[in-house]
Amino acid sequence: MATLVDANTPTAVLDRVSLVLDAFDGPGRLTLAQIVRRTGLPRSSAHRMLERLVQLRWLRRQGRDYELGMRLVELGSLAVHQDRLHRAALPFLHELHRVTGQVVHLAILDGPDVVYLEKIGGRLAAAIPTRVGGRYPAHCTAVGKALLGYADEDQLPAVEADVLGRKTKFSISTGAQLRTELAKVRAHGIAFEREESLSGFGCVAAPIGNLGEAVAAVSVCGPISQMKLDHRLAAPVRMTALGIWRNIEGGPVRVQPTLQQSRPLAGGSARPRPIAAPMPDLQYA
Amino acid sequence: MATLVDANTPTAVLDRVSLVLDAFDGPGRLTLAQIVRRTGLPRSSAHRMLERLVQLRWLRRQGRDYELGMRLVELGSLAVHQDRLHRAALPFLHELHRVTGQVVHLAILDGPDVVYLEKIGGRLAAAIPTRVGGRYPAHCTAVGKALLGYADEDQLPAVEADVLGRKTKFSISTGAQLRTELAKVRAHGIAFEREESLSGFGCVAAPIGNLGEAVAAVSVCGPISQMKLDHRLAAPVRMTALGIWRNIEGGPVRVQPTLQQSRPLAGGSARPRPIAAPMPDLQYA
Repeated sequence: MATLVDANTPTAVLDRVSLVLDAFDGPGRLTLAQIVRRTGLPRSSAHRMLERLVQLRWLRRQGRDYELGMRLVELGSLAVHQDRLHRAALPFLHELHRVTGQVVHLAILDGPDVVYLEKIGGRLAAAIPTRVGGRYPAHCTAVGKALLGYADEDQLPAVEADVLGRKTKFSISTGAQLRTELAKVRAHGIAFEREESLSGFGCVAAPIGNLGEAVAAVSVCGPISQMKLDHRLAAPVRMTALGIWRNIEGGPVRVQPTLQQSRPLAGGSARPRPIAAPMPDLQYA
Repeated sequence: MATLVDANTPTAVLDRVSLVLDAFDGPGRLTLAQIVRRTGLPRSSAHRMLERLVQLRWLRRQGRDYELGMRLVELGSLAVHQDRLHRAALPFLHELHRVTGQVVHLAILDGPDVVYLEKIGGRLAAAIPTRVGGRYPAHCTAVGKALLGYADEDQLPAVEADVLGRKTKFSISTGAQLRTELAKVRAHGIAFEREESLSGFGCVAAPIGNLGEAVAAVSVCGPISQMKLDHRLAAPVRMTALGIWRNIEGGPVRVQPTLQQSRPLAGGSARPRPIAAPMPDLQYA
C-alpha cells in the first residue's frame, strides 16, 4: 500500500498532470492509448485523470480524441495580461507598430529559447510564424540576441558543443559567431537579425531592463527589403524599450518570469535600482 | 489516516490545483496567506503545492507574491493554435480585417459567456477591451447573439429571472428583449450589436456551423459612426463564416470545445452532415 500512497502524494499527482499536458505539445490530438504510450502512466489511472481534466475544462474530448481545453486558454491569457511587464508594454508596442508599420514582438528568455509575450502586426503578422506563448531558439532571433547579450555565461546555448541549430542558412551556427555577435549587442545596446530566423525577413531588437541587464526584449520585424536595418529603426525600438521599463507598475522592478533561473542582481539587492536617467544615446526621440 | 489518503486521491489533488489556479482569476498577484484564505486549503499543503507549481512554471514567485506562470501561457497558446476551428479560421479572419478595416473576433459560447479565440485588428484593437481567452456576457455581444440564436433553450441566460446584466445603457436587459432579438438572428442568419457592449462601438456577427446551428461565431467591430450596421458588412462576415466552416481540417466536423454541454446533433450522428452547397443568400461574394 505504501507505494500506492506514495504515487498519490500531491507532488506525484501534479507531476503526472504535468506529464499528461506536456504530451500535447506537438501532436495536438491524442487518444487514451497514445497518452498512455507517451506518459508511461497506467491506463486506468490515465483515463481517470483525463476524464477529470475534461470536467475541469483543461482538456476537451471529441469522440476518442483528447485536446487541450478552454480553461488553459483562459489561464494562459490571464497569465499574460496580469503580467506587469506586458501591461506596461502594451501601449508602447502598439505605438511602435503604428510608427514603423512592422510586426512588433515582446519576448522573454527561457532556457535556450525566447517565449513571445506579445505580437502586434497588421497583415504582415500572418507571414511571420511566431505566436504569443510560442518558443524560438534565442540565438536565431533579434530579441534572443538582445537577451543573451546580457545573460550569464551559463545561459548561453551550446557553449561547449560549438554547433548551434540553424533556422536558415544565415542563422548563427557556432558559439564563436554568437560571442562576436553578443559583444556587438552589448557595445550598441541593440540587436539585429538578417534572415536568420525566416527567409526574407529581418528584425531589430532592444533589451528591456536596467543598464547592463535584460529582463525582456522588444523588436520590430519585417521584410528584409523594406527594413532599413540600421539606426533609423534602432532609435524607436530603443525608445520603446526604455518607455516600457519606466512604465512598469510600482517602478521598474525585476519582472523576469523565471526567477529561479536568473542570476543574482548586482549588489545582491532584491530590487534593482531604478534608472536614474535615460542613457545618453536615448535622448533623441 | 483514511482521510489523509482520501484527500490525496488524484482527483482531490487535481481539484485543489484547480482551486489554487482559479484564485488568480482577478487579483493577479497573491501571497500564500491570501491563497490560503481564498482556497481554504491548509497552509502547509498549500505552500508545498505552490512551490511545486513554481517548479513546473505554472506559477512564478516574486518575493512573497505568486503569479500565474509561463507554462500556462505556453499551454494556453497551444490550446488555441491546435484548435482546428482556429486554424481553419485564421486566414479568413485576417482577410476580413483587411477588407473591412475593422476589429475581427472569433468566439465560442461557454455557459452564459462568449470566450474569444482570436482578435485581429490594427490600432483600433487597443480601444476594444476584449482579449483572446477573455470572457464577455453573450447577450451583450454580436458574437454571443449569433451563438445564442442557435443554442438550446437551457443555454439561454436568465430565462426565469427576467433581468439580464447590462454593460451599457443599450444592452439587452430582459429575457423578452433577448428572445425578440434572437428570433431576428435566426431569421436573417446575422446578429447586430449597437453600443450594447461598449459605448461608441458596434458589431456584426455571423454563426459558424451547419444550417441551423452555431459552434462558433465571427464578428467585425468598430466605431458605431464608421460602421454601416447594415448588410454591407453582413455579406463579408457571412462569407467569412461559411469559408471557415468549409475550411475545417477533415471536413466541417463538430469542433465545439464544451462538448459535454452541447446539445445532441440532429439525427444523433457523431458527425454533422457537411454543407452540400452554400445558402442561397451567400451566393454573392
